[in-house]
Amino acid sequence: MNDRTPLLTDQTPLPDTIEARLRRQLTFLIEVDRLKTILRQSPLAAADRRENDAEHSWHLAMMVVVLAEYADEPIDVGHTIKLVLVHDLVEIYAGDTPIYHPTMGADQAERELAAAEKLFGMLPADQAAEIRALWDEFEARQTPEARFAKAMDRLEPQLLNWMARGGTWLSPGITADDVRARKAMIGDASQALWAASKQIIAEGERRGWARPGQARR
Amino acid sequence: MNDRTPLLTDQTPLPDTIEARLRRQLTFLIEVDRLKTILRQSPLAAADRRENDAEHSWHLAMMVVVLAEYADEPIDVGHTIKLVLVHDLVEIYAGDTPIYHPTMGADQAERELAAAEKLFGMLPADQAAEIRALWDEFEARQTPEARFAKAMDRLEPQLLNWMARGGTWLSPGITADDVRARKAMIGDASQALWAASKQIIAEGERRGWARPGQARR
Ligand SMILES: [Ca+2]
Repeated sequence: MNDRTPLLTDQTPLPDTIEARLRRQLTFLIEVDRLKTILRQSPLAAADRRENDAEHSWHLAMMVVVLAEYADEPIDVGHTIKLVLVHDLVEIYAGDTPIYHPTMGADQAERELAAAEKLFGMLPADQAAEIRALWDEFEARQTPEARFAKAMDRLEPQLLNWMARGGTWLSPGITADDVRARKAMIGDASQALWAASKQIIAEGERRGWARPGQARR
Repeated sequence: MNDRTPLLTDQTPLPDTIEARLRRQLTFLIEVDRLKTILRQSPLAAADRRENDAEHSWHLAMMVVVLAEYADEPIDVGHTIKLVLVHDLVEIYAGDTPIYHPTMGADQAERELAAAEKLFGMLPADQAAEIRALWDEFEARQTPEARFAKAMDRLEPQLLNWMARGGTWLSPGITADDVRARKAMIGDASQALWAASKQIIAEGERRGWARPGQARR
């Protein structure tokens, strides 16, 4: 899929008896069903398959509810949840860019921008701007809520990798030090969660679920 | 799965160097990964498979963000999102009870209560009480937020059934009147959304995607 992909509803438009604004909103809400088909690298803990972006976004939202008390700066929980709900929507057309992938990040920003314009542009202008602002806020990490949302995005696959006894920690050429470097932004949101994150990586390294940290030095 | 199912982390407990309260919370957050494996009857719009509860919960949360303006009574959007995030958690052990299923509803309340006690009981007591209160509020439908959350839970599969040109509307013995009866609680939250819902069902009925309303009369 990309920003020239036809809409899901092109084949089955909603009845045109529905009031125009609401019809646009419902058409958008059908289109975002595609998030359920965007696969991430992370293996589920509960089944033998990879996670999709919609499940992942739900999981982050649950983590915000349960872990908000560990935020080092006060956060608005409802707002933080909104950030995680929308943070991956652009992947509907731009695809998932694996965190340990060497080259795919190059044109990621461009692809994601085109995707945002297509997808959010389906909504009435006021709501397009609202969702776009949430996505921009998440990406910029300049608010306590965005930093906490990003920390959840880093911590969740770590829990799944633990359960998989390695998972993407064992991606080609990656060491425990690389994992720590990519997870360090958890510490921008919460010292307590970053401490736990480091304990999980250290124990994974000890058990051989991540390559020794010094392998690339 | 049921309330005697071992925990996912029984095989791979988190490092015991993690502080006790946080370790309980993370253990719960791993266990709820199971929600991604609980299948609903609804077919996805974007792929040829059934929807799971985690994706469904994310979708409802997105609908709250986009459709909150149609609530007939003022709602707290953040609180409403929390209700939909947790509303199906008990299905991890109790399973999904299909809305058009003739008998499975009989011991549903009992199974869901046992599931709630096991699952929420994994959390520290203060949070177990908080999540339980959210679930109870959703089920009781006595607050504007709970009524709106429930309306999303009824409206979302309707959008998926539309895209499937029938889907579960064509369950054995079900007519368009049955569908309308089960969806009517959308009107307890929003007259505008209930009007749209009725337009979708009526057009589905006209196209043969739901059996004529009078079939059972
Ligand atoms: Ca349900």
